[in-house]
Amino acid sequence: MFIKGVNLGNWLVLEKWMSPVLFEGTDAEDEYWLPRKLSREVYEARIKIHRSEYITERDFVTIKAMGMEAVRIPVPYFVFGDREPFTGCIKELDKAFNWAEKYGLTILLDLHTAPLGQNGFDNGGICGVCRWSKSPEEVEFVLSVLERLAERYGNRKGLWGIEAINEPVMDRAWKLFDVPNRYPAADKDMAEGSGPCTLEFLKDFYVRAYDRMRKFLPEEKYIVIHDGFELLAWKDFMQEEKYVNVVLDTHQYLMMAEAEGCEQNVEAYQEYIREHYEKEIQEMEQYFPVICGEWCLFNSYACGCDTKGGRSVLNGEEGSRKEALGVQEKKQIYQAVAEAQLNAWKKGSGYFYWSYKLLTDTVNEKGWIGWDSWDLGRCVDFGWFPTEEKDNRE
Amino acid sequence: MFIKGVNLGNWLVLEKWMSPVLFEGTDAEDEYWLPRKLSREVYEARIKIHRSEYITERDFVTIKAMGMEAVRIPVPYFVFGDREPFTGCIKELDKAFNWAEKYGLTILLDLHTAPLGQNGFDNGGICGVCRWSKSPEEVEFVLSVLERLAERYGNRKGLWGIEAINEPVMDRAWKLFDVPNRYPAADKDMAEGSGPCTLEFLKDFYVRAYDRMRKFLPEEKYIVIHDGFELLAWKDFMQEEKYVNVVLDTHQYLMMAEAEGCEQNVEAYQEYIREHYEKEIQEMEQYFPVICGEWCLFNSYACGCDTKGGRSVLNGEEGSRKEALGVQEKKQIYQAVAEAQLNAWKKGSGYFYWSYKLLTDTVNEKGWIGWDSWDLGRCVDFGWFPTEEKDNRE
Repeated sequence: MFIKGVNLGNWLVLEKWMSPVLFEGTDAEDEYWLPRKLSREVYEARIKIHRSEYITERDFVTIKAMGMEAVRIPVPYFVFGDREPFTGCIKELDKAFNWAEKYGLTILLDLHTAPLGQNGFDNGGICGVCRWSKSPEEVEFVLSVLERLAERYGNRKGLWGIEAINEPVMDRAWKLFDVPNRYPAADKDMAEGSGPCTLEFLKDFYVRAYDRMRKFLPEEKYIVIHDGFELLAWKDFMQEEKYVNVVLDTHQYLMMAEAEGCEQNVEAYQEYIREHYEKEIQEMEQYFPVICGEWCLFNSYACGCDTKGGRSVLNGEEGSRKEALGVQEKKQIYQAVAEAQLNAWKKGSGYFYWSYKLLTDTVNEKGWIGWDSWDLGRCVDFGWFPTEEKDNRE
Repeated sequence: MFIKGVNLGNWLVLEKWMSPVLFEGTDAEDEYWLPRKLSREVYEARIKIHRSEYITERDFVTIKAMGMEAVRIPVPYFVFGDREPFTGCIKELDKAFNWAEKYGLTILLDLHTAPLGQNGFDNGGICGVCRWSKSPEEVEFVLSVLERLAERYGNRKGLWGIEAINEPVMDRAWKLFDVPNRYPAADKDMAEGSGPCTLEFLKDFYVRAYDRMRKFLPEEKYIVIHDGFELLAWKDFMQEEKYVNVVLDTHQYLMMAEAEGCEQNVEAYQEYIREHYEKEIQEMEQYFPVICGEWCLFNSYACGCDTKGGRSVLNGEEGSRKEALGVQEKKQIYQAVAEAQLNAWKKGSGYFYWSYKLLTDTVNEKGWIGWDSWDLGRCVDFGWFPTEEKDNRE
C-alpha cells in the first residue's frame, strides 16, 4: 500500500491565516471565537459561502489531474451540527464523497479538533486551550463522533480511512511549540489547567476509538492514529492480531526541523530529512504502515528570512519585505526539498501534502512572501512540485 | 498581435447558475435583485466572502501555468461603489492588477452591465430589462465609469485594454435569444419599454466612449467594442486614422450555432465553425483586430441531450439524467471542437475563453451534466483543452 494525497485544509476546519477575510472585522483568532464575535446571520452567511466556494467539484478534478489518489479532509467535532453555535458540515462531506467517487479519489476523514482542545493550536480550533484529554465527557463525545462517521461512510467506496484525532500534543511537543505563548488564549479562564496529554491517555483513547469505529468499518478501511509528535513511541502498541489496517500518521515540517536546530539551507534540510524522516519512518514501518499526513515545501531559506519555526505576521514575526530570491533559485530550492521529502515518504506507506489550497495573498499583504509553498496548487503551477504525466490529460 | 486569455466570469458580476449558493434562500434570479432579497448584512457577508475566495492570487498563477497571457474581467457598473444598494469592487480590481503584474498577465476590463440593462440577460445584471440605451442619463453614467476606469488603470503595465460595454443587444439578437421569455423580468413595470438598441445608438456610444477613455489611455492600450452580435455590421466604422488600437469583440458559442439550426454533431459543428466563425472573422480582420471575447467547448452533443440553445434547468429545461457518453468519447468531442474553434480564432487577433471557473455541481445537482465544459479549469484538467508546454513548469 502506498497512498499519495493532499489535505483539504481550511475547508471545514478554519485557519485564519489561510483565509483571513473570513475573520475580518473581528478579533477572533480561531474557529471557536468566530461565531462568538459575529452576529449569527453574518457568521452563517460567511461560513455558507466559504464552504460552497473554497472546495468544489472542480477541485476534485484538479487534484486527480495532479496525479493524487486521495484527499485528507480535516473535520471539526461539530460536523454533525450538534454543538452550538457552530454550523455542522455533514452535507459538505456527503457531497465530497460523491465527487471523490465520480473522479476516482478516496477520502481520509481526519477529526481535526476536539472540544476543549487537544493541542491548543489555532488549527485545533481554539488557541491556548488544551484540556480535552482531562474531560471524560468530551472524550466520549469525540468517540461518538468517530462512531457516527464510521457508520455513515463505512461502506462508501470513496472512504480510505478515518483518523481518530489530529495532532494531540504530548509533553515534548507542548514545550517545543511553546503553546501558551505561541497561541495565547483569548479567555485565560478557559485555558486554566491546559497542558499536554500523556502517552497512556492517548493509547487508551486509540484502543477505544478503534473498537468504536471498527464496529462499522469493514476491515479494508484504514484506522489512522497520529503519533502525537513522538514517532518512535508506538513500537509496542496495537501489535496484536486483532488490530487490522491501523496506520500510523506522522507530521513532518521543515519549520519543525528548524525549530530543533536544523540549519537553514538546502544541504542541511536534505541531511535532516535523510537522518530523521527517512530513518525513523523506515524503523516504524516494521510496526505499522506509516504515512506522513502533513508536510510541505515551506522553509525559511526559500522565504529569505528566518521564520522562527514557521511563525508568521500573525505571530508578530516580520516576513520578507520583498522577494530575496529569483524565480529560478526558488524553483531549485523547492524542487530539491520536494525530492528529498518524497524520497523519505517512500520509506513509508504514503503522504498527504498540507495543503491543497490557501488564499493567503503574498502580493497585496505584507510579510507573506514564501508562504505560497504551503499551497500545493501553486507548487504544481510554479513547477516546484513534480507531477507525473497526468492520467486524465492526453 | 494575438492574445490568448480567459474570462474571470462570475467574480465581480454574478451569474446565478455559476454559483447558486450565493442566491440560496431567495427568489432572486440576478444580481439586481440579490441585495433586495437579503438583509444588508447578509448580502454584504455573502459578497465579501465570494469575492475573496472565488478568484485569488493562486488563480492568476494557475492561469499563467495554463499558458494564458491575459484575463478579461467582467466589471459591474457599480464598480466604484456609487450605486446603492450594491457594494463596489474597486479594491478587488486593484488587487487583480497587482497579481497580474506579478505573474506576467494582462487585463482586459470589460464593463459587463449597465443600469437599466443593455441586453436583458441574467448576466447583464437584470433579467428582462433592457432600457439603458433609452436613458441619456444612464448612458452618461456608463461613460463616466469608463472614464474613471481609464484614469485609474490607464498607465498600469497590467492593463491590456478596456471594453466599452458587453453584449449590447440589437434587433436580430433580441429575437434570436427571445429575451422577454428566456429571461422574464421579476418586475414587469421595470421591463416596460424594453427592447433592442439600434446600430446608430451603439456607434454613437462607441465614439463617445473612445474619446472619453483615450484621454487617459496611452495609445498602446486597446479600446474594445463588442459587435452587438452583428459581426459584419462594422466595416465602415472607426476606420479614420484618429482611432487607434480599436479591437472588435465577437462572442461565438456553439449553443448559438445550434439555435440558428446547426445540427448537433461534431462534423456539423466543425463545418459551422469553418463557414461562419472563420470566414467572418477573416473578413472583419481587414477592418479591426478581431477577438473572440467569449466562447467555450459547451455543446448539446456532448451533453447527451438537446439543450435548446444552451438553456439549463434554470430555464426550466431538463438536462441529462446521467452521463450519455463515456470519458473517452467526451474527450474526443471536446478536443475536436476545441481544435476547430482555436483554428478559427487564429484568423483573428485572439480569444478569451468563457469562463475560467464555475462552481456548478454536475454530480450533486441534477440536470447539469455537460455544463462543466464552460469551466476552463476543468477542461484543462480533463485534457479537453490543449495546453502547450507550461512556461513556468519545468
